[in-house]
Amino acid sequence: MNKEKAVVIVSGGSDSVTLLYDLHRQNLNLEVLSFNYGSKHNDIEIPFAKYHADKLGIKHFIININFNEWGFKSDLLKSGGAIPEGHYEEDSMKRTVIPFRNGIMLSIATGYAESLGANKVYLGSHKGDRAQYEDCREEFTQAMSLATLLGTKNRIKIISPYNTLMKWDIIKKGLEMKIKYEYTHSCYNAQTPPCGRCSTCIERIESFFRNNTPDPKYETTQEWDSAVSHMREVIYEFNKHH
Amino acid sequence: MNKEKAVVIVSGGSDSVTLLYDLHRQNLNLEVLSFNYGSKHNDIEIPFAKYHADKLGIKHFIININFNEWGFKSDLLKSGGAIPEGHYEEDSMKRTVIPFRNGIMLSIATGYAESLGANKVYLGSHKGDRAQYEDCREEFTQAMSLATLLGTKNRIKIISPYNTLMKWDIIKKGLEMKIKYEYTHSCYNAQTPPCGRCSTCIERIESFFRNNTPDPKYETTQEWDSAVSHMREVIYEFNKHH
Repeated sequence: MNKEKAVVIVSGGSDSVTLLYDLHRQNLNLEVLSFNYGSKHNDIEIPFAKYHADKLGIKHFIININFNEWGFKSDLLKSGGAIPEGHYEEDSMKRTVIPFRNGIMLSIATGYAESLGANKVYLGSHKGDRAQYEDCREEFTQAMSLATLLGTKNRIKIISPYNTLMKWDIIKKGLEMKIKYEYTHSCYNAQTPPCGRCSTCIERIESFFRNNTPDPKYETTQEWDSAVSHMREVIYEFNKHH
Repeated sequence: MNKEKAVVIVSGGSDSVTLLYDLHRQNLNLEVLSFNYGSKHNDIEIPFAKYHADKLGIKHFIININFNEWGFKSDLLKSGGAIPEGHYEEDSMKRTVIPFRNGIMLSIATGYAESLGANKVYLGSHKGDRAQYEDCREEFTQAMSLATLLGTKNRIKIISPYNTLMKWDIIKKGLEMKIKYEYTHSCYNAQTPPCGRCSTCIERIESFFRNNTPDPKYETTQEWDSAVSHMREVIYEFNKHH
């Protein structure tokens, strides 16, 4: 039987890289798609997407979509202001939203998949992407999947298998698969080692911490301990006010 | 009361230009969006979109999406083969489909609308766009609208008010509104006067013919009569075989 063709969107962050390895274990004919959409951290994360695709012998393709030129406003973009510090569910995180970013990436990936003769598009959004990011939720993915099913000859489905998982559950999976997370990038501030201050850093630190494993992006025990200590303060403060 | 903000996608073809005038009569705060996606006829049709937006005093913005660079295959694109001749519902017309083109344009327009604080995106697809174009149908638009509603803060809706109309019904509306259709472009072959051979030319000729009005794109009565005569042959041949 021919393997089913599928496209997986991989940013080069920890979630999508885990998804890539997870899907690779399944009987799928995969192609990896990365979007360079003009964020501050795209240039650092996309080479990691390519690194893992190459390692697994999977074709990797980059699609450039320049939200900056299109007049989209977000602090995640190079054209935007400073990345806010703190917890993902703070109101300030709204500034990092790129309006309908996942909808746009999924639509383009759907057209790309249709061109390839694939009938599935995978996305690594998860349950933690909930508060500010409307287009990360399961109900959005399902509606989008209905639209792609009706709007394509191949009856393409959108699948987001991690939408029921928290980021720490994904990291747990990845650690079991022995993924080298030093070859992933999450920090919105595009820093290496990670800034440890932006919302995605806080969430990633929490996720490794809950798995009793230091994030290999931090080079020394001291750096890691200090990152964990800051993360605990942020979460403590957040819980006090919510 | 503040007028509701809405984005309308206008290609510069007869359907979307009619929709623009139709919406302008309603109590809406409009912005016009055109997509330059690398088709053979974009460069000719988009200036007409701008012409009508300017005439109505509405802001016009062009978004560049280069399907050619993204590896999408379609004869509609500059990178594709010759535009096939004949009826819209012929199998050969599949070659002019750009996979999920409307889904992609609607997603980007949704993000753009969210950036503006708009809550509606209008598209001029119609009932005739049915056979080969999966993402022109009403059920697709409705599913997409559910996805944009769930995936945006503004709860954006996609509205395609002409999905129940045939192209001749739209032209009828436009003729009543005294739209100057010489300032629109439909021909896939990017010809002026139109080639009269491609599927969109055939459908446009039929639509003006059914309204007992010559299409002003044809400069002489002789040109128009010859276009009508070819259209009738194509439809006769099509009906014989279907």
